Amino acid sequence: MQSTIRSFDLAHLAHVEILTPKPDESLNFFVNVMGMTETARKGESVYLRGWDDYEHHTLKLTAAKAPGMGHFAFRTTSPEALANRVAIIERGGTGKGWTDGDLGHGPAYAFDTPDGHHMEIYYETEWYKAPPDLKPSLKNQAMRFPGRGANVRRLDHLNLLTSDVVALQRFMEDTLGMRTTEMIKLDSGAIAGVWVTCNNKTYDVAFTADHYGARGRFHHATWAVDSKEEVLRAADICLENGIFIETGPHKHGVQQTFFLYVYEPGGNRIEFDSAGARLMLAPDWQPIVWTETERKKGQAWGLKTVETFHTYGTPPVEK
Amino acid sequence: MQSTIRSFDLAHLAHVEILTPKPDESLNFFVNVMGMTETARKGESVYLRGWDDYEHHTLKLTAAKAPGMGHFAFRTTSPEALANRVAIIERGGTGKGWTDGDLGHGPAYAFDTPDGHHMEIYYETEWYKAPPDLKPSLKNQAMRFPGRGANVRRLDHLNLLTSDVVALQRFMEDTLGMRTTEMIKLDSGAIAGVWVTCNNKTYDVAFTADHYGARGRFHHATWAVDSKEEVLRAADICLENGIFIETGPHKHGVQQTFFLYVYEPGGNRIEFDSAGARLMLAPDWQPIVWTETERKKGQAWGLKTVETFHTYGTPPVEK
Amino acid sequence: MQSTIRSFDLAHLAHVEILTPKPDESLNFFVNVMGMTETARKGESVYLRGWDDYEHHTLKLTAAKAPGMGHFAFRTTSPEALANRVAIIERGGTGKGWTDGDLGHGPAYAFDTPDGHHMEIYYETEWYKAPPDLKPSLKNQAMRFPGRGANVRRLDHLNLLTSDVVALQRFMEDTLGMRTTEMIKLDSGAIAGVWVTCNNKTYDVAFTADHYGARGRFHHATWAVDSKEEVLRAADICLENGIFIETGPHKHGVQQTFFLYVYEPGGNRIEFDSAGARLMLAPDWQPIVWTETERKKGQAWGLKTVETFHTYGTPPVEK
Amino acid sequence: MQSTIRSFDLAHLAHVEILTPKPDESLNFFVNVMGMTETARKGESVYLRGWDDYEHHTLKLTAAKAPGMGHFAFRTTSPEALANRVAIIERGGTGKGWTDGDLGHGPAYAFDTPDGHHMEIYYETEWYKAPPDLKPSLKNQAMRFPGRGANVRRLDHLNLLTSDVVALQRFMEDTLGMRTTEMIKLDSGAIAGVWVTCNNKTYDVAFTADHYGARGRFHHATWAVDSKEEVLRAADICLENGIFIETGPHKHGVQQTFFLYVYEPGGNRIEFDSAGARLMLAPDWQPIVWTETERKKGQAWGLKTVETFHTYGTPPVEK
Repeated sequence: MQSTIRSFDLAHLAHVEILTPKPDESLNFFVNVMGMTETARKGESVYLRGWDDYEHHTLKLTAAKAPGMGHFAFRTTSPEALANRVAIIERGGTGKGWTDGDLGHGPAYAFDTPDGHHMEIYYETEWYKAPPDLKPSLKNQAMRFPGRGANVRRLDHLNLLTSDVVALQRFMEDTLGMRTTEMIKLDSGAIAGVWVTCNNKTYDVAFTADHYGARGRFHHATWAVDSKEEVLRAADICLENGIFIETGPHKHGVQQTFFLYVYEPGGNRIEFDSAGARLMLAPDWQPIVWTETERKKGQAWGLKTVETFHTYGTPPVEK
Repeated sequence: MQSTIRSFDLAHLAHVEILTPKPDESLNFFVNVMGMTETARKGESVYLRGWDDYEHHTLKLTAAKAPGMGHFAFRTTSPEALANRVAIIERGGTGKGWTDGDLGHGPAYAFDTPDGHHMEIYYETEWYKAPPDLKPSLKNQAMRFPGRGANVRRLDHLNLLTSDVVALQRFMEDTLGMRTTEMIKLDSGAIAGVWVTCNNKTYDVAFTADHYGARGRFHHATWAVDSKEEVLRAADICLENGIFIETGPHKHGVQQTFFLYVYEPGGNRIEFDSAGARLMLAPDWQPIVWTETERKKGQAWGLKTVETFHTYGTPPVEK
Repeated sequence: MQSTIRSFDLAHLAHVEILTPKPDESLNFFVNVMGMTETARKGESVYLRGWDDYEHHTLKLTAAKAPGMGHFAFRTTSPEALANRVAIIERGGTGKGWTDGDLGHGPAYAFDTPDGHHMEIYYETEWYKAPPDLKPSLKNQAMRFPGRGANVRRLDHLNLLTSDVVALQRFMEDTLGMRTTEMIKLDSGAIAGVWVTCNNKTYDVAFTADHYGARGRFHHATWAVDSKEEVLRAADICLENGIFIETGPHKHGVQQTFFLYVYEPGGNRIEFDSAGARLMLAPDWQPIVWTETERKKGQAWGLKTVETFHTYGTPPVEK
Repeated sequence: MQSTIRSFDLAHLAHVEILTPKPDESLNFFVNVMGMTETARKGESVYLRGWDDYEHHTLKLTAAKAPGMGHFAFRTTSPEALANRVAIIERGGTGKGWTDGDLGHGPAYAFDTPDGHHMEIYYETEWYKAPPDLKPSLKNQAMRFPGRGANVRRLDHLNLLTSDVVALQRFMEDTLGMRTTEMIKLDSGAIAGVWVTCNNKTYDVAFTADHYGARGRFHHATWAVDSKEEVLRAADICLENGIFIETGPHKHGVQQTFFLYVYEPGGNRIEFDSAGARLMLAPDWQPIVWTETERKKGQAWGLKTVETFHTYGTPPVEK
């Protein structure tokens, strides 16, 4: 049974770096299809944000030879929380040391998950200040509503593939202090997928077993819109822009997320979601464990899960 | 400037006790218009819940001579957090002592706000177990979706009237460890309204100056639905059931809540809301301060605030 | 090319009689899942309606040994239009003669489609008058919004299976004066499906080739809700009630209908749909012809059409 | 009682010419806030369309000294219907003769309403053919979904002010063959407003008494979006763009239209609406007559009608 003594050191998923072999096409997708806004450019990277993301960026889009994830970062709840987590990570042996930070945030501590995904945590950040032409009419909003493409509001969560689900779960829980909210347990006893959170969202990160047993791969990143209607419209917009829709819109049984999965031009899977009023407010939430039989029912309303959803990740595996 | 060292002792608003001089009509409203489900009855009270509230109840509806709020309660994040807050409250002098609890939760510590609103905090709770006919199809949901009336999902927040906004804000922040997310400051310097939270919801409790200078009155309680469409439908359902609609549906500038305010038959103001993907994830959120000029613009899309919204509360004031 | 001289004799699809071997379970589905309201009972039939259907009923649910469609009926735009169409039908040779009408409507002329589906047309009808407890608050609405289940608003369209698509299309166009709005033409030149209308809805009836070459079978009947959100909610409600969801919610490429297909307990396929602001206002609309290649892309957002959608109809075919 | 013998000569409201003293600002509004697309320019006019309008344009935006309506036009159901109506109009004495047509349509017959509004009717039209970059993915859609601003789909209706409601109603019914679906009758017996249609939409044109007794003025024109959610989003977009919101979003009691009224920069009132699945399919629909008492209840959910809604029209009246 999961301890009810939870850690409050991590505040939230802060940003993800996505690697793309087609930087121009990918940028066009994130700006005109997703409706994100460019904040800055530096080197091979463009920094982007949803209209209500409060930090400098939630996406760092970096040109690379192959698609995949560069790194992802969490913000901590305080400088003390940062120091506390760094100490724990260092004891665990996957720490890589401090960086000077990046555009938009201060010093970050870099480390790897046991599976080799690159992570960072930091506290100091730059609150986004909208330039005059992007000032919102309501001052409790980070930026003006763009009225462009799918108008994604904020980063929601990240999904990883891993060669060892249990090791990654242990790392997320013990080293980072996150809580498991839902998981899939096969008849063999193997854990096939885990959803963890550090706040009242029902998950910030999910990870499932890599079909190929590969290490450190990326499944998808998700930005949230305000309503299911907007997810449906996002599907129309993807269709009109020639963006490959892998599956959806539909509702997951796990987490009840209303989802739409597409591949951005660089090859990475991106999700639009909308979760309604669902939050995990209980401090002693016990993980929901889905069985193999339950998973065979398909998604919430019966949609069969497409095969690629189980196998495709970035970078692609040489077969 | 608000400290960035936040307390994590309170988990969330847990339930509210609403007093009604018309218990049958009020019960019919909460069951058939709101779509809540009765969990239990005891004495003069009926206990009710939204379909995804995880505890025994979020509403205790109690027959009384006049409308108003009996008490409201927060759940803490742990037994230690409960003990910690009780100690602080007792030092503050408004503590009233332990109760044996109530249907659905364990020992609670009772106290008053400086304005005389009755509050309780507790940790031990009874997770709701749906009887067979109310079992949900998806096991990560507390109860079957009712398909009745407005189908409210969960308790969202509470709004109080107070004779002293600043004193109540200080109590909420210093004694209970909540954070102010938004507030209204008049040209005179007076604080007219404050919104506070203890989690990632942008508010659990709001309070505004009592027009009559009365103490301890109740403004409204709010249950959330999943979408703005459902708030609009709730308005249709209220219309069909002869429920007085005070104002809305419309969008507040403050907190950007999509609201609908009605008076339940007992005379208490009840709100249906839907907040979309908006959350307060930043650990160092600085309070948004709205000016008198900004408030004069009306609600987000220009709706003039109806006079009763500023004056009416329960119990009504003898004028 | 389709003539621009359109007939205005038929007004709209009026009702459908559905046969069920499980009358109690089917009635429970239509009342509590669909949210329809019973108007009357007579013999083995129960008459039901959506909350904004203006006639006595749009569904006649009749107990029978096997599922299927009893008959379906159109209302004409005037008594003269009725007489005109009867004359044309009689010349065509599939007329069966006048009936005295049924509960809710006056004399009807009965006939068969070339494929043997039973049809009726009539003009005289009984406008629904809601009893006191079902009176709507707004007088331009047929009945009070029920706030029950999926709350279907009105009958939308009907879908038939046919052994001869072209013959049925010719009958619908030439004998009944309907217009083809969309159709599917295979590479072989065969017409696989046709959508026809007699008004500004983009279709009242659709028909596709029967996989088994059977005659006179029924594919589905559809009631409309007001929004896509409500179609999504209908899926939740079906899930909670153990109703089999065949496919959807998703958007058809053909007609862009936002659909959800389920099987009612008696075995008939029923659809919930929502079409948004789409209407066919053009008097000279030319049929959209979809090719086999286009159809292979699946539904609008890429969903593969489930096999049963092509094969299953009622009554089931003995294989 | 209204005859059940309806005319089918007019097909639908085709386009409206709006006059603006601020052509650049108005154009920016229609393109970037409404999400319309420019089809052509000629002289002082820009021609625009919603993404699913099937004709060349539904808005002709013309620079002028004062705001107002230049003319509005209906398309007929056939050349014969056009000839028939022209004959009737000419007998009525307000005919002005044939024009050569305009960009996008053939010869039109020009005439005035009894109140002096300029009207035209025509049959020959140019079906819109999207250029390559605006080609839709689904061939049953006129143009690619823009993903810009409020994304209005199609022209919905027009609202006029008139010095003589009854005379205009008689003209619409007797001369143009339209049907009254709803109307407002004051206690004095005076008709204050009338809604008429020529198809299954519940209205194409509405007209109310001009507060100043002026002749031929314009109240508003309306473009439809697919859902109420999109009307709400349109309000956000207007807010962000500094567009004056007069009233809404809310639901009218009359016609149950979900509305949002704004003033475009040139001073004309524009509405965004969404009507859900509501259609008038009955061939013998009897006009709904709203009383003064009923109207005093405000809009459907109780919103008080703002004063300007009763008084403001274009061109403004010199007071």
